[in-house]
Amino acid sequence: MAMTEEEKVFKDPVHGYIYVHHPVIWDLINTREMQRLRRIRQLGTTYLAYPGGDHSRFSHSLGVYEVVRQIISAFDRNGYEWPHAFDVLAMVSGLLHDVGHAPFSHALETFLGTRHERWTVRIIEDPATEVHQVLERVRPGFSREVSAVLRKDHPEKLVVSLVSSQLDADRLDYLMRDSIATGVDYGKFDLARIIRIMRPYRGRIVVRRSGIHTVEAYLLARYFMYWQVYFHPVSRAGEVLLRAILERAEAVLGQNPDPYVPHPALAQFFRRAMDVRNFLALDDSVLLTAFNLWRDHADPILKDLTRRFLDRDLFQDLPLTTRDPETLAAIREVVAEAGYDPAFYCLIDETATVYYDYYLGNQSTPKEDDQAVWLYDRDEDRLIEMSSVSRPIQAIAEESRGVRRLYVPKEIWRDPPLRARIRALSQWEEGGA
Amino acid sequence: MAMTEEEKVFKDPVHGYIYVHHPVIWDLINTREMQRLRRIRQLGTTYLAYPGGDHSRFSHSLGVYEVVRQIISAFDRNGYEWPHAFDVLAMVSGLLHDVGHAPFSHALETFLGTRHERWTVRIIEDPATEVHQVLERVRPGFSREVSAVLRKDHPEKLVVSLVSSQLDADRLDYLMRDSIATGVDYGKFDLARIIRIMRPYRGRIVVRRSGIHTVEAYLLARYFMYWQVYFHPVSRAGEVLLRAILERAEAVLGQNPDPYVPHPALAQFFRRAMDVRNFLALDDSVLLTAFNLWRDHADPILKDLTRRFLDRDLFQDLPLTTRDPETLAAIREVVAEAGYDPAFYCLIDETATVYYDYYLGNQSTPKEDDQAVWLYDRDEDRLIEMSSVSRPIQAIAEESRGVRRLYVPKEIWRDPPLRARIRALSQWEEGGA
Amino acid sequence: MAMTEEEKVFKDPVHGYIYVHHPVIWDLINTREMQRLRRIRQLGTTYLAYPGGDHSRFSHSLGVYEVVRQIISAFDRNGYEWPHAFDVLAMVSGLLHDVGHAPFSHALETFLGTRHERWTVRIIEDPATEVHQVLERVRPGFSREVSAVLRKDHPEKLVVSLVSSQLDADRLDYLMRDSIATGVDYGKFDLARIIRIMRPYRGRIVVRRSGIHTVEAYLLARYFMYWQVYFHPVSRAGEVLLRAILERAEAVLGQNPDPYVPHPALAQFFRRAMDVRNFLALDDSVLLTAFNLWRDHADPILKDLTRRFLDRDLFQDLPLTTRDPETLAAIREVVAEAGYDPAFYCLIDETATVYYDYYLGNQSTPKEDDQAVWLYDRDEDRLIEMSSVSRPIQAIAEESRGVRRLYVPKEIWRDPPLRARIRALSQWEEGGA
Amino acid sequence: MAMTEEEKVFKDPVHGYIYVHHPVIWDLINTREMQRLRRIRQLGTTYLAYPGGDHSRFSHSLGVYEVVRQIISAFDRNGYEWPHAFDVLAMVSGLLHDVGHAPFSHALETFLGTRHERWTVRIIEDPATEVHQVLERVRPGFSREVSAVLRKDHPEKLVVSLVSSQLDADRLDYLMRDSIATGVDYGKFDLARIIRIMRPYRGRIVVRRSGIHTVEAYLLARYFMYWQVYFHPVSRAGEVLLRAILERAEAVLGQNPDPYVPHPALAQFFRRAMDVRNFLALDDSVLLTAFNLWRDHADPILKDLTRRFLDRDLFQDLPLTTRDPETLAAIREVVAEAGYDPAFYCLIDETATVYYDYYLGNQSTPKEDDQAVWLYDRDEDRLIEMSSVSRPIQAIAEESRGVRRLYVPKEIWRDPPLRARIRALSQWEEGGA
Repeated sequence: MAMTEEEKVFKDPVHGYIYVHHPVIWDLINTREMQRLRRIRQLGTTYLAYPGGDHSRFSHSLGVYEVVRQIISAFDRNGYEWPHAFDVLAMVSGLLHDVGHAPFSHALETFLGTRHERWTVRIIEDPATEVHQVLERVRPGFSREVSAVLRKDHPEKLVVSLVSSQLDADRLDYLMRDSIATGVDYGKFDLARIIRIMRPYRGRIVVRRSGIHTVEAYLLARYFMYWQVYFHPVSRAGEVLLRAILERAEAVLGQNPDPYVPHPALAQFFRRAMDVRNFLALDDSVLLTAFNLWRDHADPILKDLTRRFLDRDLFQDLPLTTRDPETLAAIREVVAEAGYDPAFYCLIDETATVYYDYYLGNQSTPKEDDQAVWLYDRDEDRLIEMSSVSRPIQAIAEESRGVRRLYVPKEIWRDPPLRARIRALSQWEEGGA
Repeated sequence: MAMTEEEKVFKDPVHGYIYVHHPVIWDLINTREMQRLRRIRQLGTTYLAYPGGDHSRFSHSLGVYEVVRQIISAFDRNGYEWPHAFDVLAMVSGLLHDVGHAPFSHALETFLGTRHERWTVRIIEDPATEVHQVLERVRPGFSREVSAVLRKDHPEKLVVSLVSSQLDADRLDYLMRDSIATGVDYGKFDLARIIRIMRPYRGRIVVRRSGIHTVEAYLLARYFMYWQVYFHPVSRAGEVLLRAILERAEAVLGQNPDPYVPHPALAQFFRRAMDVRNFLALDDSVLLTAFNLWRDHADPILKDLTRRFLDRDLFQDLPLTTRDPETLAAIREVVAEAGYDPAFYCLIDETATVYYDYYLGNQSTPKEDDQAVWLYDRDEDRLIEMSSVSRPIQAIAEESRGVRRLYVPKEIWRDPPLRARIRALSQWEEGGA
Repeated sequence: MAMTEEEKVFKDPVHGYIYVHHPVIWDLINTREMQRLRRIRQLGTTYLAYPGGDHSRFSHSLGVYEVVRQIISAFDRNGYEWPHAFDVLAMVSGLLHDVGHAPFSHALETFLGTRHERWTVRIIEDPATEVHQVLERVRPGFSREVSAVLRKDHPEKLVVSLVSSQLDADRLDYLMRDSIATGVDYGKFDLARIIRIMRPYRGRIVVRRSGIHTVEAYLLARYFMYWQVYFHPVSRAGEVLLRAILERAEAVLGQNPDPYVPHPALAQFFRRAMDVRNFLALDDSVLLTAFNLWRDHADPILKDLTRRFLDRDLFQDLPLTTRDPETLAAIREVVAEAGYDPAFYCLIDETATVYYDYYLGNQSTPKEDDQAVWLYDRDEDRLIEMSSVSRPIQAIAEESRGVRRLYVPKEIWRDPPLRARIRALSQWEEGGA
Repeated sequence: MAMTEEEKVFKDPVHGYIYVHHPVIWDLINTREMQRLRRIRQLGTTYLAYPGGDHSRFSHSLGVYEVVRQIISAFDRNGYEWPHAFDVLAMVSGLLHDVGHAPFSHALETFLGTRHERWTVRIIEDPATEVHQVLERVRPGFSREVSAVLRKDHPEKLVVSLVSSQLDADRLDYLMRDSIATGVDYGKFDLARIIRIMRPYRGRIVVRRSGIHTVEAYLLARYFMYWQVYFHPVSRAGEVLLRAILERAEAVLGQNPDPYVPHPALAQFFRRAMDVRNFLALDDSVLLTAFNLWRDHADPILKDLTRRFLDRDLFQDLPLTTRDPETLAAIREVVAEAGYDPAFYCLIDETATVYYDYYLGNQSTPKEDDQAVWLYDRDEDRLIEMSSVSRPIQAIAEESRGVRRLYVPKEIWRDPPLRARIRALSQWEEGGA
């Protein structure tokens, strides 16, 4: 494949510069579908907790491409065997892996009932998209090769694991990027060294055993980012409020044309029957504009919830340990007595089911598609599973409790009698982590 | 004034943490008007040139508050005379100074014909705003004190100069913030030292002469940020396209209700008769959602221009030296021959008129409201104007040429005969800086 | 106590600036004993492993002072009860805590048989030192108060724990400083937040429970710094070689005056009867100059060992698991057969005995002088021991194995038969961590 | 040339990592002569002004090698013509360029009357050095090729300009390194971009015109580093004191063996007849150990001057404008009256003669060996001299005044009558820059 006339670069807070040499990468970056990611925040509602969390999925996507490029380049420099015929496929897959992300990420996915990975594949395979057309110009059928990688179906497992594994380019980029943007410094690790100690080995990407502490630091960075950022109670408060807004809007909005639906794609969204074209019209702006309209809606609940979201008057979180249906009903009763519809003002958030897989390796020998990180012991020419030789990683690998929280309006929480009643019911110990 | 029960903090990429002690600051941050700034990018269209330029006016506003707080604290520590009765006024003024910013900053201001400073004052003085109500709870009339500072009318000139001068908290924050966000490292300077060498002196803020090189570095940081970021041709390409879109939309959009107007505030915007309430409903999202609709509009020009903006298919810039009306008409003729309406596809951008004032000191003694930076020579107890003792600053103080560029579609620029014709007419030397 | 006329500052890579307000701090910094620390590397032989590890005990000592100053200032800002009468005592103790450090730290301590804490106290209490004289000018007996803090004998336990505990200013500074200097990024943590969540509580310094993850990151930073820096095999190779050199020199050097003893203090050192005056004449330079001379000494072993040290031709490390005396004798035999005196060329290093105490809390309620980190739960007004609620900390708290290594010349290690023999004897598995 | 089996790396605060692939680089790093640079501070006496300035010439030398490596790699990536036969020569020359540095840099050079460049060439060409032997193993005569590059005699001018020019790898590394170590942030510039815009063009290294502001930032970084670090009055105070000490020592020390001469090389030094072997025995440690001895010497001046140096009780600087011999004699008279020998206590420092050449380009067309930075205008295929198109650079290019300072003991400066007399004579305006 011909190189572009001269290298293109993007300034980047994580990698310094992102270097583009292949025309197909450059053309993909300039498609409508990739440019849309400039208008979707990488971290959904996290900007409500961390004012710096405004960075976009676009810069993350460039970053994943760059990490793939650097890894392949390091393999080359060290003389490792790597199937260079797949270089472009790997870089393209890294670049496009998030092209199907919905605005505000996971809340909308839940509502649509389709994970973003599915949308990514649909967009790549849809002949009407610019991304598809650029890919097919590489060679007919190339778009299917890319979607095979992203579906983890591609026969070259090394390429798949570069894009989807415990040590994939996606995580390597987002942990650093989210850490830098939010300012949560201890999400950082030594990316340059991780890349240097990676190597292909019998169809998977492994790391040299001598780099064990660098990998520990990387896995612990994930642990910290979950607790400090991804599970942050304020970030989750935005997410639960978003879900409540969508549910209320679905119930309240009329048939088209409704002046409170700012874009036709949103009407289709609420009919839960989106096509690719309309999906691509959705971005953070359309949602925020809808909320902007809805804060003047006649429905008092929709009006109130959107005002809360836009003005960051979020719900208070309380730790919730009980799962007893009667107790939960009693809590909802308290909220109702306080004058709030519990369906929208008494919300439970369980994040373990959404995000929590930070390290689950526990086998002693590798099997296909396992999620473990394997250390390569050069002298003995064998692989050792990470948590079997690292106590801190063993500790967090076993930890899978996740977070379960109750969210209610701050007015309730600030009312001592109401607070006391909910506290008693939720078995909540004040100050619990 | 009572302190809050415990200090509140925001994580911040510039200052590490932003510390809030006074309840009025906390309450102002939580107003609708301040929270709206979370949805307005600090740098307008610059995110099209620098993928990291997604940071909001909200974080900048917190930063200006923090710099004011730190300066006052340093005055205190060093035993300088400072009117502590004005502490809260100064901090509040720093926090609120940008509350009247329109989305995409300057393009919309030009269209509205009202600078954001005016909107800031209107919002602060409007009894219906939350900001106004919080201020009046401090003491009746306090909102007028704040607007007096922001209008530079307040009798305590020290407070005015903390918020509006060559060394004000606004610039000290935004240069660092924009530098960090875009990754343009040489916009950085030694903020901690600048704050330490500042002192009040006969009604103005001056800097100790021994810190001359630190101030040079700060003023040169401005110089670099203008050339690398604020005047960046891609950033300006977004701005000129935005202006063309607004002009076309005004001509094309129908009367209300028009399904292509996603929010009533935008309809009022095009009637050029905005009230505060509707102004506050405008944010980046409403504009981007409008563009999202307009890319499917029947008008081919509006449709094309908004597609270009959203997909970052921006115009090409050419340096333009001529001001001869006949020559400019001839250039427009070339564009028309190529099939483009020159009113929307042959655009001139002059940034000197908008931004360019980076250092204009040239007097030898201070006078009221001059814009110079004054160095304080302790031994001689006198002030020395900065550019009179610094050759690099003298050099950039004299430079006031600004930038004048012609923007046309890239298709024209890529057509050698058309390019040659425009080049000849624009007296453009290829490769000129 | 009077403030200095204006604040003094030092530029510092960890804290940005170090601020000095009290004249006694300024005067102590300028004593002969503190200035000597400029000529002692903070990390002993670590510069042989990390070329950036050249920073001095002097900058660390300033840093500890600065951290104490910031902690007291944060207590003040948050309205915590703190005995302000002890401010200067705490800051002085932080500044002086390492004034008795020998060059190349621990190797020389072992040789002298006196830990640096003893020397620190002797220097502070010796009427002939400048440090002592400055302290006594504060008030008669003040030097004894300082040495009481450093001996952990002072009745105000809060002051003691600021300078000596799991969360003392010493560790808070050196972990950050060593991390920045060596470039081992994952030794960093959020120092500003640690300081903000610290508070005095019933005679000890505790941290708010909400900051648990920040403390985890701090304790794990220690873990990483031990493995990546303090236990680094090359750094330890320098240390074991240093011990061998000192032992050989003691055996070989003649009576005074010996032209190979560059300074009289070194002669006294080898007589193992140092007084304070001579101790203070020792610094890294004197040792390195001695090595520089000894590389031309007639004794072939002393000559060879010092050449190895100066030219960084260090011994190879092998993991050593056996403690069986016969096996160790057999290994020494191999080394002897290869032509090397095993007393100087077959060295065992056990670092656990020297450094390894990174987290040993395991009680459930505090007792005096325990070393645990206690979390303060505000709602329940009780303390919780850190490792009882953090699995990663529990994991590293239990890990106390340390490192045991065999060091032999690289020539032996590069000789396959010799290597195989030693390997078999040492029960060494190649590639073991 | 064969690659090493696997790449070697050094952690580095400037470049993240330094990568070594060629065995000859690795072998050179491990020579006695290169390892000696670990014991020579990069910035001489600057650590007395900036506590962080303890970094060594060794890490700088690795950095220069790394910058050369990166530049060649960028030329390759961009398809520029570059004579790859000279890759190793260029990298080796970068690595070895400072191998002849004396301890405390310039003060000792002046005393020896031989610049370090001469010593570098002597060491490289001396058959007894390890460096020479490693080079000759590459191919016979290779050491002469390297010394030709360092003497600027090599016919391949591109290689020479990589190592010696306004934009050479030496400056690119030391400005960044000294800036990071001292914490003077505004010495930083965008090294990655400088490397990317460099290209070979007709036998010299030029930079693309589009990168003009990046080069401005680099040249201004030099300007700032000179004023903030290299010309810092405290750093220079250390230098003038060092010169005075050496002069006094020469006069006072006896014939060998003198117990106050800690190493035979120093005796030879004072006989001003050094050979390579003894030169290589000199390092910072030997000098500091000598001072350590001399502070107990019978000569009161030598004793006092060395105490001042070691305890950082440096002389006070006063700006000096006069060059009138009678006036200078009168000043010395004042110092003598105060009881100090003016030959050692009334010192003049002129730094312009030593360092000051930061930008002297003023031609309009290139000529061989000019020192200008040339911008390459691709469209017009011509070179433009930097200062002709940049006003800030023109401003600093014209500035060549340098700094001239008088140094006297602080006791004199603190005595008002003496101070007034010297002030009147030196035409010194208090507070002058």
